[in-house]
This record gives sequence, structure tokens and C-alpha cells, in this order.
Amino acid sequence: MDAIQQLKRKINDLNLWSKKVVLKRNEYLIQPGAVERHIYFIDEGTIRAYIEDDGEEQIIRFAYRNSIFTALDSFLTGKPTRFYLQAIKQCKLQGVEKKDFEDLMHSSEENTRLYLLMLQEFVVQQMEREVDILTSSPVERYKRVLERSPHLFQEIPSKHIASYLRMTPETLSRIKKS
Amino acid sequence: MDAIQQLKRKINDLNLWSKKVVLKRNEYLIQPGAVERHIYFIDEGTIRAYIEDDGEEQIIRFAYRNSIFTALDSFLTGKPTRFYLQAIKQCKLQGVEKKDFEDLMHSSEENTRLYLLMLQEFVVQQMEREVDILTSSPVERYKRVLERSPHLFQEIPSKHIASYLRMTPETLSRIKKS
Repeated sequence: MDAIQQLKRKINDLNLWSKKVVLKRNEYLIQPGAVERHIYFIDEGTIRAYIEDDGEEQIIRFAYRNSIFTALDSFLTGKPTRFYLQAIKQCKLQGVEKKDFEDLMHSSEENTRLYLLMLQEFVVQQMEREVDILTSSPVERYKRVLERSPHLFQEIPSKHIASYLRMTPETLSRIKKS
Repeated sequence: MDAIQQLKRKINDLNLWSKKVVLKRNEYLIQPGAVERHIYFIDEGTIRAYIEDDGEEQIIRFAYRNSIFTALDSFLTGKPTRFYLQAIKQCKLQGVEKKDFEDLMHSSEENTRLYLLMLQEFVVQQMEREVDILTSSPVERYKRVLERSPHLFQEIPSKHIASYLRMTPETLSRIKKS
């Protein structure tokens, strides 16, 4: 069982869920300016996180079924988020309050290690993402993401993948064919 | 005393330093393909981290005196780094081996919390950086970084700041005057 499933079972056992959310396609979990005090487990659906820059959406991340997700900037700092979190497909989420989550993470050495591992993994993902964004060749960006996250190409509509890869849907389609 | 100074004192007390490094200006701490097994405290100097993309340097981060620094991708995963870490000014660093660092971080609840806090802070910084990079307006990029890291403009040569802000030195100079 992976770290996230372990964590989910612990939360089940302690009955720490304090929120259930159902999002229809295109509904928002949160938008910029709001403060997020929950962390969520995605039981069903997919979500995209994006920022708006100069009227353009810039997708920064996707989240899938069986993963943990939140507006992490806001969750960690207590300040308003900069991100839009929007359902790509209908989503079912369960949320845990920050205080309960943190108490759980500090309640045993094993849990703390689990949390450290998750954070470290996230840091590594963020560094990969930073290199993605700074890679100027569209073909290289495509190859990097295909190698790292092949499942993305099964689960996410092409127009969103194109935005994530910072190219037009036409360029993405051309690269996939070549 | 901040988290990093606390950590440094603990390492001093336990005599865990296993490496001293002096870098002349422009010397490298590490280059892509090498594996980093140490984490460093910068006693003197400044360092830049960059990737090379299509023959162009893309600066992703600076590190200053009294901070912790390493090729974090490699340090966390054990795989070769993608980054160049290069001294901007002469640097003096002390290094701790990964195993010793991790043992220390897990040796008490207080230390583990310290490590968690440092990782969380790093995650927040990386999210800020991701928004920087995706911000298309050079003026907005400049304002974001000036607000977040005003010291950068005192410590780092303009040509490197310009690279970090993804603009030419001429554009940076024009924006600063306006």
C-alpha cells in the first residue's frame, strides 16, 4: 500500500474527515483570494490547478483519483491562494482540517516520516516541473512529461495537456503524430 | 535564532561536518550528471543554480551566506543532478553527509519539526517561483521578486538577476529606472 493509501486508512480509522465535496465538471474547489483550511483526498475525478496571467490560463498541475490535493500555498501559509482548482471531470473529495491533519502527522514517528516522504516527493516533482517550464523546445517538454507522467495522456483532455505543456493544441497534435 | 542557525549549532555540537569546500568565483560545486551526497551551509559567498537549455543558461535560484544549499534533486533522489551550482563570489561551505543529516533530523521530535518546517517553506518558495516563471509581463516578474526578495538586488550582479527574471540586462535596467 502506498503512502497516500496508508494515510487515508489512518484518517478513516480515526474518523477525521470533516468535509465531503462533490464537484460537477468545470466547478471550482477554490479560486484566488480564498483561504484553504482543508486537505483533500480525491475519491473520484480529476482536477486541474491553474493561474491566470494576463487573461490566459496557465495550468500548473493535475490531480487524479487516489491522490491528495489542496491549494497548497494557502494551506501551508494561511494566506489566500493564487490558484484556481477546477474539476475536469465530476469529482468526489473528502477533506480533513489542517489542524487535524497536522496533529495526525505529528502523532507518531511513523506518520511524521510519511509526511516527510510526501513533502520530499512533492519537492522533487516541483523541481521537475520547474525544468519543464524552462525548457524552450516544445518537443523536449512533451518528451519530459510523457516519460514522467504517461498516465496524464490517458486521463486529461488534449487541450489541457497542451496548456500544461505551454503549446497550442495543434502543436501538441503535430508532435504526437511525429 | 532562526531554523537554519539552530540546525547549524546542532551540527557543530555533534561535530557532524564531513566536508569543507572553498570555491573561487565561477567555480562549480556540482555540474549535471554528478550525484550530490552532502548538504551544505554557506558560511561565506553566494551561489547560483542554473540549468542549460538549448545553449542558454536559465538561473533558477540563488543561495546566500547563512543558508542551506545543495543540488536538492540529486540529494533527495540519489540520482544525478540536472543543475549547475556555481559560485558568484568566493564561497566557503561546510557539508554534512546525507545519512548523518537524516539521522539528525530523525533523532528528536524537535528536529523533525524543524526539517518539516524547512521543507514546507521550500515548497512555498517553489510555488512562488513557478508563478514567477509563468508570469508573462517582465514588469510584473520584477515586482514579484522585488517584493519577495529585496536583498537579491543588493547581493547579486544585474546580469544574473536579469537571467533569473528571464529578461535582458537592458530590459531590467529600463524597468528599474521607470
